[in-house]
Parts: sequence; C-alpha cells; structure tokens
Amino acid sequence: MNYKMMGRFLAQIVAVEAVFLLPALAISLGLGEWDAVRGFLISLAVMGIVCLVLFASCRKAPGPFGAKEGLVCVSVGWIALSLLGALPFRFSGEIPRFIDALFEIVSGFTTTGASILPEVETLSRGLLYWRSFSHWLGGMGVLVFLLAVAPAGGKGSGFTMHLLRAESPGPDVGKLVPKMRATAMILYLIYIALTVLDILFLLAGGMPLFDAVCVAFGTAGTGGFAVRNDSIASYSPYLQNVCTVFMLLFGVNFSCYYLLLMRKFSGVFKDEELRLYLGIFLGSTLLVAWNIRGLYGSVADIFRHAAFQVSSIMTTTGFATTDFDLWPSFSKSILLMLMIVGACAGSTGGGLKCARVLLLLKSLRRNIHQVLHPRKVQVVRTNSRVVNETVLDNTAAYLAAYVIILLGSFIVLSLDGFSIETNLSAVLACFNNIGPGLDAVGPTCNYGAYGLASKLVLILDMLAGRLEIFPILVLFSGSTWRNS
Amino acid sequence: MNYKMMGRFLAQIVAVEAVFLLPALAISLGLGEWDAVRGFLISLAVMGIVCLVLFASCRKAPGPFGAKEGLVCVSVGWIALSLLGALPFRFSGEIPRFIDALFEIVSGFTTTGASILPEVETLSRGLLYWRSFSHWLGGMGVLVFLLAVAPAGGKGSGFTMHLLRAESPGPDVGKLVPKMRATAMILYLIYIALTVLDILFLLAGGMPLFDAVCVAFGTAGTGGFAVRNDSIASYSPYLQNVCTVFMLLFGVNFSCYYLLLMRKFSGVFKDEELRLYLGIFLGSTLLVAWNIRGLYGSVADIFRHAAFQVSSIMTTTGFATTDFDLWPSFSKSILLMLMIVGACAGSTGGGLKCARVLLLLKSLRRNIHQVLHPRKVQVVRTNSRVVNETVLDNTAAYLAAYVIILLGSFIVLSLDGFSIETNLSAVLACFNNIGPGLDAVGPTCNYGAYGLASKLVLILDMLAGRLEIFPILVLFSGSTWRNS
Repeated sequence: MNYKMMGRFLAQIVAVEAVFLLPALAISLGLGEWDAVRGFLISLAVMGIVCLVLFASCRKAPGPFGAKEGLVCVSVGWIALSLLGALPFRFSGEIPRFIDALFEIVSGFTTTGASILPEVETLSRGLLYWRSFSHWLGGMGVLVFLLAVAPAGGKGSGFTMHLLRAESPGPDVGKLVPKMRATAMILYLIYIALTVLDILFLLAGGMPLFDAVCVAFGTAGTGGFAVRNDSIASYSPYLQNVCTVFMLLFGVNFSCYYLLLMRKFSGVFKDEELRLYLGIFLGSTLLVAWNIRGLYGSVADIFRHAAFQVSSIMTTTGFATTDFDLWPSFSKSILLMLMIVGACAGSTGGGLKCARVLLLLKSLRRNIHQVLHPRKVQVVRTNSRVVNETVLDNTAAYLAAYVIILLGSFIVLSLDGFSIETNLSAVLACFNNIGPGLDAVGPTCNYGAYGLASKLVLILDMLAGRLEIFPILVLFSGSTWRNS
Repeated sequence: MNYKMMGRFLAQIVAVEAVFLLPALAISLGLGEWDAVRGFLISLAVMGIVCLVLFASCRKAPGPFGAKEGLVCVSVGWIALSLLGALPFRFSGEIPRFIDALFEIVSGFTTTGASILPEVETLSRGLLYWRSFSHWLGGMGVLVFLLAVAPAGGKGSGFTMHLLRAESPGPDVGKLVPKMRATAMILYLIYIALTVLDILFLLAGGMPLFDAVCVAFGTAGTGGFAVRNDSIASYSPYLQNVCTVFMLLFGVNFSCYYLLLMRKFSGVFKDEELRLYLGIFLGSTLLVAWNIRGLYGSVADIFRHAAFQVSSIMTTTGFATTDFDLWPSFSKSILLMLMIVGACAGSTGGGLKCARVLLLLKSLRRNIHQVLHPRKVQVVRTNSRVVNETVLDNTAAYLAAYVIILLGSFIVLSLDGFSIETNLSAVLACFNNIGPGLDAVGPTCNYGAYGLASKLVLILDMLAGRLEIFPILVLFSGSTWRNS
C-alpha cells in the first residue's frame, strides 16, 4: 500500500473541502448567523491542521499506484470528507450529537437525502447551503473534480484511471476522450451547465434565489435535501414539473450528453440503457397514476404527483410533493422496486443502475439458452457490442454483495423494534441513496429515532451505495492492508 | 423436442399418481366419507383416461433426449401432477373452487404448506391424508421415484441423468454411485427409513397413528401441512421437540447420510455446507431465544419455541408451535432471512440452499481479491475441491433470476391491497416453499383472501421454487418449443 501517495492525495481532498466551505461561511457572515460562523471557523481550523499534517508527513511519494490504491483512496477520501464535513453542524450546535451530524453530511455527500432533522427550516442558512452543496459535490464526485482541476503532474494515467473507475457509478466506466483528465473536465462542465439551466428555470417560476440554488444542488446530485419542511410540496405546480424534468435529466448517463454535443444523435437514441430508463419511467408513471386516480382532484394533479414521485425515487433523488406513504400498496411497491433499479450508470443517481439490470436480464437469458443448448458458445451484447465476461462476472458479484449487505443491514436495524416495512425501506432508501422510505421513515418523517448502531450501519450503507460497494468492502479485507 | 418420449413419460407419472391416490381412497372408504370417495373415484377415472390417451398416442418414442427435454419433462410433469392431483378436492366439493384446490395441491407437492383453508379439521380424513402425502411425494421428487422403481429399459443414462439433475435441488447435483438409478434408489431408501423412524418417535410420544403419519409426511418433505387447525401447537413438548429434530434432519443433504452409512465420517463432519447449516441454526436459535425471552414462562419453553420455529422456517417446513407473527421485529426479520437461506442442497428443503449461499459468499470474496490483485488467477473451493466455473456462473444466474421473480411477484400481489409485509412474506414463503408468512398470511391466517392473479403467481412461484427456477423459466423461452 502506497501510504505516502494516499496521504498526499487526502490532503488535497481536505483542502478542496475547506475551499468549498467558504461560500457557506460567507452566507452565514452576511446574515449574521454567529453560531454557524463559529462552527464553520472551528471546522476550517481543523481542516487546515489535518491538511498541513498530511502534507508535512507525506512529502515525497513516488511508487506504484494500482487498482487497490485507487479503491482505498476513494473510500478513505470519502470517509475523511464526511468526518470533517460533519464538523460545522456539530460545532455550531445546530446538530448537537456528532453521529447525527455525520449521518446528515454522509447523507449529503452520498446524495441520499435522508435526514435526522424533524424540521429543516430551523437550520441556519449557511448550514442549509452547505448541506445542499454537499449533494452537488458528491453527485459527480470530489475526486473527479480534483482530476478535472488539479495538475496531473507526475501521477500518470494509471492513477487517474483507477480513481475515476472507483468513484464513478456503473458496471463499466469508460473514457469519453483519450485523456482521463479531459474526460473528468467534460463531465464537470456538462454538470455545471445543466445545474445553471435548472437554477434559471426555477428562478423563472418565481422561486427565491437561495431556494433555487439549493433545490438545484439537490436535483443535480440526485440528492433530495430541500430547504422547506415539506420538501417540494409547497412550490407551484410549474416548479414541481421543472424538478421532475431535471431529476430525470440528471439520472441520464452523462456520456449521452457528450454524444449529443458531438452531434452523434443516433448513438443516444439507440442507447439500450436510456431506452430502458425512460421506458421504466413512463410505465411506472402510468401505473402509479392509474392506481392513485381516486386520491387527487384533476388528471393534471394525478400525473404531476405520479411523475414527480416516480422521477424522484427512480433517479434516487428523494424529493416529495405529497406523502406517498399514504398511497395504496401497489404504488408503494412500485416505488420500492424503483429504489432498487435506480438511475443510469454514469449519472449522479444511485441504485443498482439500469445498465446493471440490463446486463443481469441479458445474462439470465443467455444462461437459459445455455441450459437448452449446452454446446453453443453465446455472448451478451449491449448496444451491439459484445460485453466483456469480466464485466458480467462483476455485475453478478455486485448483485450478490448488494443482497448480502441489504439483508445484513436489515437485521441490525430490526433490533430497534420498528416495523419490517420501516426497516426494509430505510435500508433500501439509504443503500440506494434515495432518502425517504416508508412508514416511520416516510417522506413526512425522519431517521432521528434510530439507535446508534442502526445509524452507523445506515451511514456505511449510504457510502457503500454511492461508491458501489467494492471500495468499502476492500477496507474490510485483510489483504488490502498487507504490503505485497 | 422429443414430444413422443415426453408423452410416454408423462403417462407413467400420471399412473404413479393414480396408484398413490389409492390409500387415500381406502381411508375415505373405511371411514364412510362418501363425498371424498366420489371425488377420488372421478379423479381416478380422469387420470385413467389421460394415461390411456397418452400411452396410445405416444406408442414408440426413440430419438434424442437432452438437457432441454429433461427440464421440460420435469416442469410439464409437475404441472400435470398438480392439475390432476387437485381434482379430488374439487370433485369431493370440499374445496369448491378449482384455483383453490390447485393452490392447495401445488402447495403440497412443492412442500410449501401454504393453505387457503381457514380450518383444516373440517376436511375429510382421506383428503387430509392425500394432502399430507403430496408433501412426502414432492419432497424427494416423483420423477426420482420413477427412476428408482421403473425399468430403465432403453432410455439410456442421459435420460435419467437429465431428469435427476432437473428435479433435485442444489447448485451441483452429483451421483452417489456410478449408476443413476441406484443413486435414486438409495436416496429413496434413506428417505423411507427416516420417515418410518419419525413416525415411531411420534407414536412413542402418544400421537394418534393418523396424525403421526401425516405429520411425518409433512416433516419428511419439509412441507408443513398439519392435521390440526393450530398446526403443532397443541401437541406435547416432547412431540414438538421430535419435530424440531426431524425437520432439521430432513434439511440435511442426503448424501451425508449415505456417507454415514458408508462409514465415511470425516467427509460428513468436514462438510462445509453442513457446518454452515448447523451454525446458522444454532446462531439463529440463540438470537431468537434472547429476543423472545420475555414472552414465555420458562427457559425450556423459550428454547423449545425458538428452536422449533427456526428449524421449521430454515428447513422451509412451515409448522408452527406459536404465533411468531406476534414476536418482536428482530425475530421476525431473522425468520425472513432464514426463509431466503433455506436448507441444504440435496435435501427435501427449499430456499436458496446453504450450498448456494456458501458459493455466493466465496465468489464474492474471490471477486474482492481479484479487484485487489487483478493479475492473480484465483479459484473457489468447497470441501477442498475446486468448484467448476460453470457452477459459479449458474449460481450467480440463479440469484439474479431469484431476485427478479421475487420482485415481479411482489408487484402483482400488491394489487390486492394487503400490506407490504404481507405481500413480501407471502412471496418469500411461497417461492422458498415454506408456507406461513407474516401479518395477513401469518401462521394463524391463510392465503384464501388473495385474488385469482395473485394465487396464480404464487402457484408459479411455488413450482419455480421447488424445481429451482430454470425448468419453469425454459417453458417461457421460445427456443424450447422449436425443433432444432
């Protein structure tokens, strides 16, 4: 394990976090939120010390940097980000217990949007901004950001490749352009452009600037933290529909936008994952709308709520315009399914990802054919290209790990005595980075009542979900920490 | 597709079923249950006609018989068995609707034990016997029985091999002795001996003969149909403990018993699946006992109920000595997990099987190592033998199919408006061949309230669970029915 290089990289991550804390500090200073200002200043001091110590102790760090280092860098980096990012909540006194502050910021960075706060409107504006901004930062990935802006000097393409692989979601992460750094930059530029567009559309509908920025951050990262207690419910139907569309847009694989920019339209329209994603969205919206037809006054209302909630859950954002925990079983079950399916690979959304669902379905069909015709060699294709067998193996292993972690977490949570529906949906909502679940963790409730062990498990689930399991799993493997 | 040979084989299956209906008919005749007698006689007549038509139309049937034919034979055979086996319930008038009769007998043959009857004690003795006997027959497999007793003349070992493979549970079905037919016979002899032993132990505790035979059938097949309304609750603690032990014994891979008979003790004690199975049983019993410690008077009672329910659910039997739906969330969640894990491969139990869980865990560990050390070639071993990669691929595909079927069934059931806990546990309990679920399908309730679509889905789930998915899935594949 190349500890020196990791330490140096970690220092950079902490420095970036400190810089990103400054706008939040500025807001609190401007509004005279002195408790929050104190929290930010102490946190910045801690970050500065950590950063200096890491830089000083890991001065020169050449040596090998492989897949292992990439994975560990990403997971340790995210854990450090979370531990330090929780400090402003704690030191401002606005979230008195550290475990709750950690839960809140992990929920932010992993773009989950699950909260332990019964009322968000009591938070200071500075912390509200920091909370929403963590979604934006976590959505595309802090390390991807570093790759885009930091000088690549001396690190080599293996380094950046392994980091991008480990942090970006999807079964098979590719490069858009030959250079990894340019790929990261293109991704971030698309991300920024779409976020700005979202803010403009929200402002056009009369949303206050602060709300518009925070809601856009929550939408862009497919996070789900809002700045009002009732999430998005009290905004106008136009604003809700803007959110529906933008959530859906941020759930699309960003390479599709790149292809659009390159005018390769056919590649986008023929993309099997995109078709599956939009097909599931349309199908689920129609089914839910039919199922809830008796609950709302007009057809427009029915479709607005159905489309919003389907888009919100499928893209793993977690905003709500209505208390879907009161919907009939069928709609709630569809939402639970959508939690598992998730958004597209290469988007800011979580879940299994449509690409994996597609690969699993295709592998299964191949397997059935193999049983029927044992002597024929058969391959799996997506978008007319043969899928590498390693990718298929990893997808299968991913599902196994997914199921095992899900069940294990569910058992730990059940010790707190909530209903099975609560615990199952809590694990699904955190692991898939959605946010609200059902019953006692439904959209009008929060995660505050869970005990310490459950919160820790959910924190790990959120991280495992965002980083796609393996970077977190390798931390628990003995051979990770041995020098070979 | 070799339709002629399949037809001939189907005729044999129907003939066997008709023969096995005779003891039930004799019971009803002896007790003067004339409605049941009429039901049995009409059913026998129908079976006779079906049998004759099949024999007459498929006289000579040479030709190829491969894996495809084996799978289709097994699934079509089981569906025919179920459709015909449901007739006595229908024609006796004791279960008026055919879908309910079908649900009941599929639940019997697949050793699920889920019932649509609010009270079983109102059934005639003849039908109660037929219901319990279906567990015994389905547990080891009708086709395995045929292989054991029928003349193997002219069919070749490919035939018997493919059938045994398709009907026997587990990721990698092997032969105990070189000849397939001898293997089938040994398995059935062990099965009969253990069942007789169970009956003797039950009789020694003062259980009436009829009850003892039926309960032993339910235990041996890991089915769960009882002859009393309260399942096993009103029998003495001794009898309940006998059931606990025998359920556990029938959940063990039968090849272990063969090894014991051959005095190869070390092979049994070192068997990794057996160790996992017993480890999970002990661990779960202790956890549940700790969790329910406040609900029962004495330590003996606590452990009796905990061990019974853990053994019953894990072996996928589904007997109950207490209403575990009233237990705290933690215990209920453990039972839900055990439903998924299931018993050992090569036993009469259902679920994923401990062998598959073991392979999934080991594959996952291998995968993590592979990520850390991409250039090392790594294999998966069980019992010190290298596991074939095809077996690993199939296990992964099995999990994918398992999850997809589970979620799809869950969605269909949710249309009936029951709670999420009810629907989820209903699907788990039927798919894993357990029987009782939680909430509205808990041990004191039944499946009668579900609608037609849900019952059909649950029937398919029970069959898919018993036959381990692929034989049922190939029925839906177009290439199965094309002649290549």
